[in-house]
Amino acid sequence: MTVCPDPHERTDDLGRKGFRIIQNTKTFCFGIDAVLLAEFAQIGPRDKVADLGCGSGILPLLLKARDKGGRFTAVEIQPEQAQLARRNMALNNLSEEVEVMEADLRNASAYLGKNCYDAVVTNPPYFKSGSGLVNPSSAKAVARHEIFCTLEDVLRESAALLKENGSLFLVFRCWRMAEALALLPGCGLKARRLRIVHSRRESAGELFLLEARKGERDGLVIEPPCVIYEAPGQFTEEVRRACGSGEKET
Amino acid sequence: MTVCPDPHERTDDLGRKGFRIIQNTKTFCFGIDAVLLAEFAQIGPRDKVADLGCGSGILPLLLKARDKGGRFTAVEIQPEQAQLARRNMALNNLSEEVEVMEADLRNASAYLGKNCYDAVVTNPPYFKSGSGLVNPSSAKAVARHEIFCTLEDVLRESAALLKENGSLFLVFRCWRMAEALALLPGCGLKARRLRIVHSRRESAGELFLLEARKGERDGLVIEPPCVIYEAPGQFTEEVRRACGSGEKET
Repeated sequence: MTVCPDPHERTDDLGRKGFRIIQNTKTFCFGIDAVLLAEFAQIGPRDKVADLGCGSGILPLLLKARDKGGRFTAVEIQPEQAQLARRNMALNNLSEEVEVMEADLRNASAYLGKNCYDAVVTNPPYFKSGSGLVNPSSAKAVARHEIFCTLEDVLRESAALLKENGSLFLVFRCWRMAEALALLPGCGLKARRLRIVHSRRESAGELFLLEARKGERDGLVIEPPCVIYEAPGQFTEEVRRACGSGEKET
Repeated sequence: MTVCPDPHERTDDLGRKGFRIIQNTKTFCFGIDAVLLAEFAQIGPRDKVADLGCGSGILPLLLKARDKGGRFTAVEIQPEQAQLARRNMALNNLSEEVEVMEADLRNASAYLGKNCYDAVVTNPPYFKSGSGLVNPSSAKAVARHEIFCTLEDVLRESAALLKENGSLFLVFRCWRMAEALALLPGCGLKARRLRIVHSRRESAGELFLLEARKGERDGLVIEPPCVIYEAPGQFTEEVRRACGSGEKET
């Protein structure tokens, strides 16, 4: 069986449970942000989970590889990416547990239902629309720029999908962190856990991982910083484990 | 000359320029939060600075010891604390440069003027009013609990006092960080620099240091984490320098 008919496609091992992912190097390949989000998310093995803007389906794969989440609904607006996500679920025998929908996440709660998900995961576009875009219709641009949705759309729909006390797990860029946190109250979400990701111990924060809960309870825990490299080209022990060469010990 | 007539008073060396501070152990003694805020604040040597809720006057002393700030206005609502702050300025020959006003910070811009400060510094009460207070009229309670002002009062008045592009420098507790960042836009402030303070490298964040600027420009920088202890009872090199045993080299 030929897994990769497109010359720009490649198949990567996800380092756990033999899971693999087909990615298209012309469109978008997952990065450390998805891996760190999958590690950060606290999701029970039977939880009902939505992934808003799933791309190739990397988050459901990484979560399933960690026994996080039961049934998933993965929403993706780009037809070729939704198709790729479906192929990835089939490749890993997850088609029954992960439903991929080609749809607009901006009204996800209208077709998926309100207040019915235990968790939402999302790795939304980081960049505001318009800034220096060469080709705004490319899959890469859509994944990185707010073309089809803004951060506020994602937060609002996440809150609508979640049950009371359900959690949104988000990875985003530090330079927009204040903006993200300021949007939460208007969406009915409260920041509960936050972790800053630094490339090196002495460098500025690049990404943040956030758990925001639907409900009224206050109180934020800022976890110890996550550091990616301990030396040039050398991951820290934590990140090596997260990237999973072989099964995780714990 | 007797510097400390009250048996509960003690005088501490601030480790720089021979500056000293009289503190009353029955009321409130400054902690690492004030020292870290003085290090974090980027204030020019001629800047006009307001300190909202100055207590014993520790922040103007720590800033002056670092050549940060020209003329200061230090506002304090408790008469005995304002009096102590005046004595501390006199003790260090700073009475000309640091004016201490016994006043309510909640309308500071009405008597100090709007849009006329380059910087505001503040170490406001961390705890919401009412939670487990033994004696709500004590100076210690006022310094720690939101009895005379809330965080929102402090942010709103800081913004009113600041010139366009002027900066507020704040130290506060991590568990209220999302709330603080969410209040900024309504006050006309934007988060610009943020630093999380961890007791140990592997422990949750305790304090955060924030620079918020009056104006419209976006973009937050999250600085490398600040770690206080490298081993039990042993400060990290950075904190040892900040606490200043002897003159700082740089």
